[in-house]
Amino acid sequence: MISKKMENMVANSSAIRAMFEEGNRLAKIYGAENVYDFSLGNPNVPAPDAVKTSIREILEEEDPVLLHGYTNSNAGYEEVRSAVADSLNTRFNTSFNTKNITMTVGAAGGLNVILKSLLNPGDEVITFAPYFGEYRSYTNNYDGVLVEISPDTNSFQPKLDEFEAKITSKTKAVIVNTPNNPTGVVYSEDTIIKMAAIMEKKQKELGTVIYLISDEPYRELAYDDVEVPYLTKYYANTVVGYSYSKSLSLPGERIGYLVIPDEVADSEVLISAVNVATRILGFVNAPTLQQKIVKKCLNEKTDISYYNRNREVLYGGLTKLGFECIKPEGAFYLFVKSPVSDEKLLCAAAKKYNILIVPGSSFGCPGFVRLAYCVSYETIMNSLPKFAELAEEYK
Amino acid sequence: MISKKMENMVANSSAIRAMFEEGNRLAKIYGAENVYDFSLGNPNVPAPDAVKTSIREILEEEDPVLLHGYTNSNAGYEEVRSAVADSLNTRFNTSFNTKNITMTVGAAGGLNVILKSLLNPGDEVITFAPYFGEYRSYTNNYDGVLVEISPDTNSFQPKLDEFEAKITSKTKAVIVNTPNNPTGVVYSEDTIIKMAAIMEKKQKELGTVIYLISDEPYRELAYDDVEVPYLTKYYANTVVGYSYSKSLSLPGERIGYLVIPDEVADSEVLISAVNVATRILGFVNAPTLQQKIVKKCLNEKTDISYYNRNREVLYGGLTKLGFECIKPEGAFYLFVKSPVSDEKLLCAAAKKYNILIVPGSSFGCPGFVRLAYCVSYETIMNSLPKFAELAEEYK
Repeated sequence: MISKKMENMVANSSAIRAMFEEGNRLAKIYGAENVYDFSLGNPNVPAPDAVKTSIREILEEEDPVLLHGYTNSNAGYEEVRSAVADSLNTRFNTSFNTKNITMTVGAAGGLNVILKSLLNPGDEVITFAPYFGEYRSYTNNYDGVLVEISPDTNSFQPKLDEFEAKITSKTKAVIVNTPNNPTGVVYSEDTIIKMAAIMEKKQKELGTVIYLISDEPYRELAYDDVEVPYLTKYYANTVVGYSYSKSLSLPGERIGYLVIPDEVADSEVLISAVNVATRILGFVNAPTLQQKIVKKCLNEKTDISYYNRNREVLYGGLTKLGFECIKPEGAFYLFVKSPVSDEKLLCAAAKKYNILIVPGSSFGCPGFVRLAYCVSYETIMNSLPKFAELAEEYK
Repeated sequence: MISKKMENMVANSSAIRAMFEEGNRLAKIYGAENVYDFSLGNPNVPAPDAVKTSIREILEEEDPVLLHGYTNSNAGYEEVRSAVADSLNTRFNTSFNTKNITMTVGAAGGLNVILKSLLNPGDEVITFAPYFGEYRSYTNNYDGVLVEISPDTNSFQPKLDEFEAKITSKTKAVIVNTPNNPTGVVYSEDTIIKMAAIMEKKQKELGTVIYLISDEPYRELAYDDVEVPYLTKYYANTVVGYSYSKSLSLPGERIGYLVIPDEVADSEVLISAVNVATRILGFVNAPTLQQKIVKKCLNEKTDISYYNRNREVLYGGLTKLGFECIKPEGAFYLFVKSPVSDEKLLCAAAKKYNILIVPGSSFGCPGFVRLAYCVSYETIMNSLPKFAELAEEYK
């Protein structure tokens, strides 16, 4: 009885989610401490204390009718959007105003809103494998076609030649995600400059507008002081999607924003469309209390040293066991080469040791597996002997 | 550059929203106390104190990692869904379980999720004029076709003959909204029984399944002890969409739920589809803190006496001035007959007195205007002399 589109979706329902639910099932049987669940990017670092303090302050300061009411614009509270713009301007030397910011129901809400606003049926959206599998669903929601650029499995930097070759008159948008899920790779400034040049050239050649959508939930999770370029400065038609899910550890609260700079083609119309899309997709506005929290916590950060310790220990431990893996510069994922070409066999073998990992084919990159290390240090430490047993199977 | 679908949407952007933004503009010029803004269903009654207390308790009781994290299932916290089911069972003598409840980003989120799950392109969704204009957008989002049943402008009860005649093999769903926005009418048990019989008969005749979607944001706002039938008890293929926007005055927080009973055709598959749709549309899960609030506030109610006083005074005042209007039994709207056939002229005339009202054509019912009386009592009282001046123009 359900729609045909959804029949396929239900059948191929997210492997990540399924794994996460499996993890909860196993935890009930074996005890959470005996399950090594690396399946989901659900932060283990608690939200900064300032979140709690802010909520208490907001409850004292604000009229509940205004605090919990619809916002005047579907884009969110003006004061919050203005504060977000100011904060970005200070950090990245940009010049955004209130109107350039739309508060969204997380980055997932923001991506749906921008794709709904842009895509006609058959329009192509390019992304670089490996990529967050939901990009395919979000694109399909609006009858767009996701076009994959094959992965460079040595560097996991984007293959720019293939990118250039695959841009057509139907290319409406390009989604990049840096720091990247699932590899943890950060695209270098050099890469971004080259990518922008290709898109500029193709826009001229084809007489089209190609929007660059920068999906940035992991912006603040960058290690060893690596620079994460702010993409609006390199390419005019850039839209940024941001989320506080990881940076403030608020994934369940569904809060983020879109930046649509004035420099973007048809900026005003696009901003209006995003406003309407926010309404008609049923988001209506980003949750209001969360918007107020964001304003108070703009200078707060998650405890990145926690993730960094996990990164060092897990990367060190696994490579010592003979697993091959690029060292991530950001996010909280390791993308590990499977010792067998069908990585689903590795996932199945790992499950015998209560280790839950996600096959790379969920990210358009078979032959690899993703480990989300946003887990407790104990989980990492206790998992290493289990990984050793797993490694033995492939010696 | 934006999508063709959105071009039309932006051009015809919600008259209600536009009016609401206009109200804010006028308030800045003339002062809020001199603007009589009846445009939006944004509750003026504050959330019950228990909401504030609950938030404080939750912050003390809950581990922030769990409180603000992704929920195990996209459908929401099991404990919250279970509590919602129990509460419904107690109130309506139903027998729902945890799995029958999916927490949603308000009713708007819930309606999008269920329509995404059900509709194939060209499928028809029937609704009864006057109706909440967003039903058209939500249906269009999934390439469905909204089929209107013309209004009975005397009783504003559904025209059941026309309903029966317009059910075809393409009819996938019927949306009802009682207490109704914009009329405040409550569909009687007799009406519901007849409507269910028609749908049962048509399902058999056509060999199809027709889902009844009951959109219930106004369920708790019913006056004079009028009974609002719980629709799952009258028709097996009923899905309920609920929101706490009005009942707890939390419209900005985006929290509600869907009920998909076991009796619904393909119930398990539909529940899975709704789970997936929640994820891929970018909601991911209903805001987590709000879910916890709901659990603590299941027995809380908004101050309906406040709305009732407004109802009595505004209805009494306007009818005394010669305006024609059915007395609402629920919700917080008056649907007033325009003294001129083009009600947009009345809206324009009202604006001269800083009175903001919404044309009935936004609800598929020209010749009428909607007044949302979820405003302060002072606004009602101060508006009456202005309405008197307006009435003079039509004498």
